[in-house]
Amino acid sequence: MDAKQKIFVAVDAVVFGYIESKLQVLLIKQKYGVMKGKWVLPGGFVKDEEGLTDAVKRELKEETGITVSYHEQLYTFGDDVKRDPRLHVVSVAYLTLVNPSKHTLKADTDAEDAQWFDVNKLPKLGYDHNKIIKVGLERLKGKLTYEPIGFDLLDKEFPFSDLENLYGTILGKEIDRRNFRKKMLSFDLLQETEKMRKEGSGRPAKLFTFNKQKYKRLAKEGFHFEIKYV
Amino acid sequence: MDAKQKIFVAVDAVVFGYIESKLQVLLIKQKYGVMKGKWVLPGGFVKDEEGLTDAVKRELKEETGITVSYHEQLYTFGDDVKRDPRLHVVSVAYLTLVNPSKHTLKADTDAEDAQWFDVNKLPKLGYDHNKIIKVGLERLKGKLTYEPIGFDLLDKEFPFSDLENLYGTILGKEIDRRNFRKKMLSFDLLQETEKMRKEGSGRPAKLFTFNKQKYKRLAKEGFHFEIKYV
Repeated sequence: MDAKQKIFVAVDAVVFGYIESKLQVLLIKQKYGVMKGKWVLPGGFVKDEEGLTDAVKRELKEETGITVSYHEQLYTFGDDVKRDPRLHVVSVAYLTLVNPSKHTLKADTDAEDAQWFDVNKLPKLGYDHNKIIKVGLERLKGKLTYEPIGFDLLDKEFPFSDLENLYGTILGKEIDRRNFRKKMLSFDLLQETEKMRKEGSGRPAKLFTFNKQKYKRLAKEGFHFEIKYV
Repeated sequence: MDAKQKIFVAVDAVVFGYIESKLQVLLIKQKYGVMKGKWVLPGGFVKDEEGLTDAVKRELKEETGITVSYHEQLYTFGDDVKRDPRLHVVSVAYLTLVNPSKHTLKADTDAEDAQWFDVNKLPKLGYDHNKIIKVGLERLKGKLTYEPIGFDLLDKEFPFSDLENLYGTILGKEIDRRNFRKKMLSFDLLQETEKMRKEGSGRPAKLFTFNKQKYKRLAKEGFHFEIKYV
């Protein structure tokens, strides 16, 4: 076997959050190296004897202060052997959804800064990270239609309009509000709370919560969440 | 940066074929090394300066004689740092569907033999390859319901019953034949040919072809193929 292979394995974290009705992605500013001063995805080289998921958790924690329990594997980038100008690096990218209000950012180690960026107003990032985010966004759009993952991005209690805005924003299209509301409520997974929230000059809106336990139970029994063509 | 990382990058090919109404997977018998004599997926170490997809194409060609134009990335296996007993190896697995009747197997290089195996009667394979195949099978089941990929496994001209058997076999369940036929024909993507085929003692069956060009055109316009809950 070829024990002299000169290929390096890295991980990158595509972390999406939803802030002020905009889909945002978490970036760090590189402190060292060829990409110094550039914004990139949190990530870095996997350590010897370290599993891939452990590596992405560690890098995210080190560089941004965020701890997340679950990272979904997104895609492994390694068709372009020059994607890192220094060396032949294969990067395994992970997708994660968080509610930014629950996490405090704290840049450290390789990161000079850590910030949320509107996915529609990204600067030119280091390496192929604009492309990685694009792939992450496509995955997110797809998943949103067949898994109730949007709730991971919202507060525990939210007005229905927040959910509607989130779908419209991420799918990047006008939502048929009546149809969306009808479909979403038909699953019987949203519970009305006693609380109301007043925003702007409109009437106070009822707050809802998502019944995750019920969804998990139903999913095991073969229930399919599906919110297509809205 | 850590240029002394001791992690190796490999690729593995999960190639599915459909033979005699059974879903089969292509395996090779290892000629050398710690897994000598064991059946494993075609694959091996990526070369320096070689892209991942190029590597999986090369390994598949070298070890089995099969050339395939498209490989879909399946998953990267690297949470278990001991998945290869020799070294810390991360494997990027690819999924491919072929029609076995169009390919001649020819074992070479690291492979002493190359054969198709019924996915339901697999021996204990080397490394974590039973697990990789399981992940591939789950992906295949999912894709079958929202992309017309089943046709890649069939002959260009096929009796409708072959298509029905393929869905039943891969999804691992009894198909509601009337409902399946109705749904499948409703897309208007199958064309009747003038030909008939007689199998066993039954009546000769009309042969169909799948209109891939039409599907591609429709897909661009937003058409969704979907063959769920049959």
